[in-house]
Amino acid sequence: MDEFALIRHYFGTAAAAPGVVLGVGDDGAILEPTPGCQVVMSLDTLVAGRHFPDDFPAADIGWRSLAVNLSDLAAMGADPRWCLLSLSLPAVERDWLNGFMDGFSALAQQAGIALVGGDTVRGPLSITVQVSGEVPRGQALRRQGAQPGDRICMVGCPGEAAAGLLAWQQGWHEAPVVARFCRPQPQLELGRALRGRASACIDVSDGLLADLDHILTASGVGATLALTALPRSPVLKDWQQRCGEVPLSLQLSGGDDYLLLFTLPPAQPLPDGAQVLGVIDAEPGLRLRDASGRLLPVLPQGWNHFSESNDD
Amino acid sequence: MDEFALIRHYFGTAAAAPGVVLGVGDDGAILEPTPGCQVVMSLDTLVAGRHFPDDFPAADIGWRSLAVNLSDLAAMGADPRWCLLSLSLPAVERDWLNGFMDGFSALAQQAGIALVGGDTVRGPLSITVQVSGEVPRGQALRRQGAQPGDRICMVGCPGEAAAGLLAWQQGWHEAPVVARFCRPQPQLELGRALRGRASACIDVSDGLLADLDHILTASGVGATLALTALPRSPVLKDWQQRCGEVPLSLQLSGGDDYLLLFTLPPAQPLPDGAQVLGVIDAEPGLRLRDASGRLLPVLPQGWNHFSESNDD
Repeated sequence: MDEFALIRHYFGTAAAAPGVVLGVGDDGAILEPTPGCQVVMSLDTLVAGRHFPDDFPAADIGWRSLAVNLSDLAAMGADPRWCLLSLSLPAVERDWLNGFMDGFSALAQQAGIALVGGDTVRGPLSITVQVSGEVPRGQALRRQGAQPGDRICMVGCPGEAAAGLLAWQQGWHEAPVVARFCRPQPQLELGRALRGRASACIDVSDGLLADLDHILTASGVGATLALTALPRSPVLKDWQQRCGEVPLSLQLSGGDDYLLLFTLPPAQPLPDGAQVLGVIDAEPGLRLRDASGRLLPVLPQGWNHFSESNDD
Repeated sequence: MDEFALIRHYFGTAAAAPGVVLGVGDDGAILEPTPGCQVVMSLDTLVAGRHFPDDFPAADIGWRSLAVNLSDLAAMGADPRWCLLSLSLPAVERDWLNGFMDGFSALAQQAGIALVGGDTVRGPLSITVQVSGEVPRGQALRRQGAQPGDRICMVGCPGEAAAGLLAWQQGWHEAPVVARFCRPQPQLELGRALRGRASACIDVSDGLLADLDHILTASGVGATLALTALPRSPVLKDWQQRCGEVPLSLQLSGGDDYLLLFTLPPAQPLPDGAQVLGVIDAEPGLRLRDASGRLLPVLPQGWNHFSESNDD
């Protein structure tokens, strides 16, 4: 099967989505923006052996490559609309492609995003997805805007994805927590609900502290987190039973959770299920308060694809 | 320099462009579409050793990675607006990055496209660029629409890029034709001028015959090309003097020219500099007429990244 047949076969199914005037099959897709909306765009690349294990199932790679991008739209409060997919593959393997597109399409359908174009090249296994979303003019969430006194919130449990990856690497593939790494669920509904309410928002891809630091830097503020406020979910407790105490670093610096981290002004009610992890301070820097009330020193460290500490 | 510093340093210069509400530095860019316009999107990936030689200058890789994408916008008749860049790099080398961004930015500035986001990952050298353009509603050019009797046209000389690559591979780096491969010039002005005039359009990336075949298939027609109509430019004649007679296959099947191939209804005047290469027929298939008037058999064959004939 040659490149063009491959594109037609796997990419040619999303033509009839709203706003799609012309999908896959020409030099470009033609799209109709919604009046009154702004367009939010992001793109992310996943490299085999770096962003997912070499022996990762194709369907999970497909899901994940879209999920990490949709999470960016969620963090901006945008509604998913259109995406483009570039696949760099060492060879054309029909089973692998079927699996990949199954995972990709399952999430695309769930999120309501249309695949409108793509490229396939022969090369080392790597996937780049570009997503476009829409948001009513002026309502996109940003990293900038957190104010002293705002609460720092999440819905969900940080560290699950990192624990899932560890379980996978140790051969414990059926661990409940593995799904948190393999099939991250972008918090699109939450992002939409935070429009006009959250003062700042980001998705946690590099680790809780590292991504909080992005909000603090963009907003010109500081923060204090209460370590006792970090939730321990049932799947993390499962992991703990088999693998030992959950290291604090896993929850503070483990990447890949793709949960929204947001700040809420005092007058705003907490969204359902949200945990308050701390508070924004006027004083710059990040402080951690332990169970006894002591303030611990902290370095905002997370997953950083080019830093010495996390790379080979 | 870590990933974030790298992104800020090289990507953070394009914030003030029209329609850019928020550029690099958040989870996504925020863009303001032009009322009355549709958005055209495309993305392409370039892999080292496949889409450019391993010893290619960084600045030429930067130029080229944007040029191949802008050429898709040209083929749709779209005005370039915004782009996103994903860089997969084996290591962070400041000189290489400076060179790459110099070439990329030179063309971005020339074409009036704003870099509004990106991703950098450690991995095998590969570049993915996604571009968005705008076109007045309903005026985008497509591959579909060629009618019997339409002339098949180009502005420029096919085969130059393939000759340039051959010269490069033979160590003749200063050959005038090398620039045609290293720094393809997307025909954006021509694309704009063809709105409402051309019945079909495509950019020649895979080779003249292969890309003409895409028009024929999309339009449900056939074509006859006159081999005597193929132009021989001065730089191709230079090449010929040193390397011998230009093979027909170089002009018919050599890829990477990034010239527009378009069909013009009889009533439409030829754009400046356009050559008529042949005519659209009602009878399906592609026919080549040689100097003596004989029809030659032809297989539409071009550069195809997954076909056996062109791959390792």
